[in-house]
Amino acid sequence: MNWYLQNGKDSDVVISSRVRISRNINKYPFTTKCTKEQLREIVDEMKGVTEALGYGLKFVDLREVDYITKISLVEKHIIDPEIAMDKKTNGAILVNDEENICIMVNDKDHIKLQAFSAGQNLESLLDLLTEIDEKLGELVTYSYSKQFGFLTVSPAEVGTAMKASVRIHLPALTLTGNIDRILNIVNNFGMSINGAYEDDTQNQSNIYQISNGQSLGLTEKEIVKNLKSITEKVIDQERLARKFLTKQPIELEDRVYRAYGILRFATRLSYEECKKLLSDVKLGTDLGIIKELDDSKINKLMLYTRPGNLQKHLGKQLDGYERNVKRAEVIKQILND
Amino acid sequence: MNWYLQNGKDSDVVISSRVRISRNINKYPFTTKCTKEQLREIVDEMKGVTEALGYGLKFVDLREVDYITKISLVEKHIIDPEIAMDKKTNGAILVNDEENICIMVNDKDHIKLQAFSAGQNLESLLDLLTEIDEKLGELVTYSYSKQFGFLTVSPAEVGTAMKASVRIHLPALTLTGNIDRILNIVNNFGMSINGAYEDDTQNQSNIYQISNGQSLGLTEKEIVKNLKSITEKVIDQERLARKFLTKQPIELEDRVYRAYGILRFATRLSYEECKKLLSDVKLGTDLGIIKELDDSKINKLMLYTRPGNLQKHLGKQLDGYERNVKRAEVIKQILND
Repeated sequence: MNWYLQNGKDSDVVISSRVRISRNINKYPFTTKCTKEQLREIVDEMKGVTEALGYGLKFVDLREVDYITKISLVEKHIIDPEIAMDKKTNGAILVNDEENICIMVNDKDHIKLQAFSAGQNLESLLDLLTEIDEKLGELVTYSYSKQFGFLTVSPAEVGTAMKASVRIHLPALTLTGNIDRILNIVNNFGMSINGAYEDDTQNQSNIYQISNGQSLGLTEKEIVKNLKSITEKVIDQERLARKFLTKQPIELEDRVYRAYGILRFATRLSYEECKKLLSDVKLGTDLGIIKELDDSKINKLMLYTRPGNLQKHLGKQLDGYERNVKRAEVIKQILND
Repeated sequence: MNWYLQNGKDSDVVISSRVRISRNINKYPFTTKCTKEQLREIVDEMKGVTEALGYGLKFVDLREVDYITKISLVEKHIIDPEIAMDKKTNGAILVNDEENICIMVNDKDHIKLQAFSAGQNLESLLDLLTEIDEKLGELVTYSYSKQFGFLTVSPAEVGTAMKASVRIHLPALTLTGNIDRILNIVNNFGMSINGAYEDDTQNQSNIYQISNGQSLGLTEKEIVKNLKSITEKVIDQERLARKFLTKQPIELEDRVYRAYGILRFATRLSYEECKKLLSDVKLGTDLGIIKELDDSKINKLMLYTRPGNLQKHLGKQLDGYERNVKRAEVIKQILND
């Protein structure tokens, strides 16, 4: 099963974990200075090592991928919007069937190794990526400086060139008005925390992404350990806030079950409204109030209701009105599954 | 079964019909001029004729009826708020088990004969009441003037002293913005039309009462015929408006099914919100969109969610907060029946 439809550790709060490592190939300049021919050579070189690298990875030339599929990959957080929208399309990906490993080629750096997991799973992801990184390092020669470590386009990433992140659902901290306090604390620990979705400016989904702020001077293991530790603190705070909410059981039940009722019976739903309803429904499910659902079904709802994945799932392009109608239909199908 | 839980003719639009005839007993002055002793004598006289009158009628002294039961009777429209709230409680009723016949004693006039039915059923009600009226006229001597007909407290009622009315659900005329035009037309035909519930100032329920404006100079049969005919015109207009709404099936389905979803899953519901939701749900049911319900179940929902009947049904007094919670529970019970 695809990782994003699974139930992971601490899935009542943590939606997913991701670790990324940026690498560049020694014999080419950074992508920003590459000619078009050099960019194609990099893609070809990575295509050439795909089989030797293993892990069930398959080479996909992004020039051959249609728009909806690209949007769908962006919504799954498997590729970045920049590489998806690049008109020159000199990018490629190496991805396995479960989509829990995806290597982007010619995003900002030549190579971005990525591993994903549902729930909190940072340490395993780091182990997996370290293994892939070592294996790939034998197949291509990385740009490396004894003084700075691995070299990357962005000076901020130089060193381990690693970025770890978790996506967490914080509805109770939001409802109890404690979210700003928590965001400040996380920032003070040297981590970044932001709304998880670029298309969700009001963060209706109540999903935040926490990621490591600095990579220089710390080992990969230390970075992951720090992120894991601050994540656990946030999880504790969110669970405390939820406990507080359960002191008014009628109000809480009413809120989450109204959301469930609308989700189940509406015949048109905007993406905005849907995110809000799903946040309430997930809260209700994770608190054991709503018995009709589980987190993996909610993950599926969260994914398939996003505009790109909705269209990808249905296999056709839809305008905004059609999407709202089809979104309600797809939700009914998933709920009745 | 009680009349108000049944499905009547044209029940997609007409909730219920009622005919009332006011009478006074010749040997007493009007209630406004009666001594307390005289009021008790009238009650006793009516008590005395109850058995002879028949129809399964039972005598109920309102002094012996608790507050919640009285409110519940008012909400069923079986007795008037004035007689229910009268602190002197010199009133009584003669009522049968089905509650489709109820004679009020010492409301405004000495006697108010009433017959009720679900749906549009004015002519049968008039036949029934005429029969009861003749029978009662043999048991007590009515105040009658050759010149004016039956004498009543209110000069406007003198003559036949009959009031006929229907309660109709007009959600589509409201949604399409045609309701004011229809209210004007009905008024121009010499009928009164108003929101059906005194406690529903914004008419969230979209239920209106149409009644005859004048009684002098027309026979009972003519009054009922006129009211029936204008009611049929309003029914036609409402059905036309509903047909218009079905041209946007998604919007309509979304509206009625969201209401159903909230009604089914909310854990607290104010009376205000409930009336609005039930109006949408009834519209959806009567248009065949919502298959989960029928009109008799909706009648039950409309009745048992009213504050008095909710408390009567549960057999205890509840404050506003408790009522909202219990209302949601009772709705779930009725929906799952």
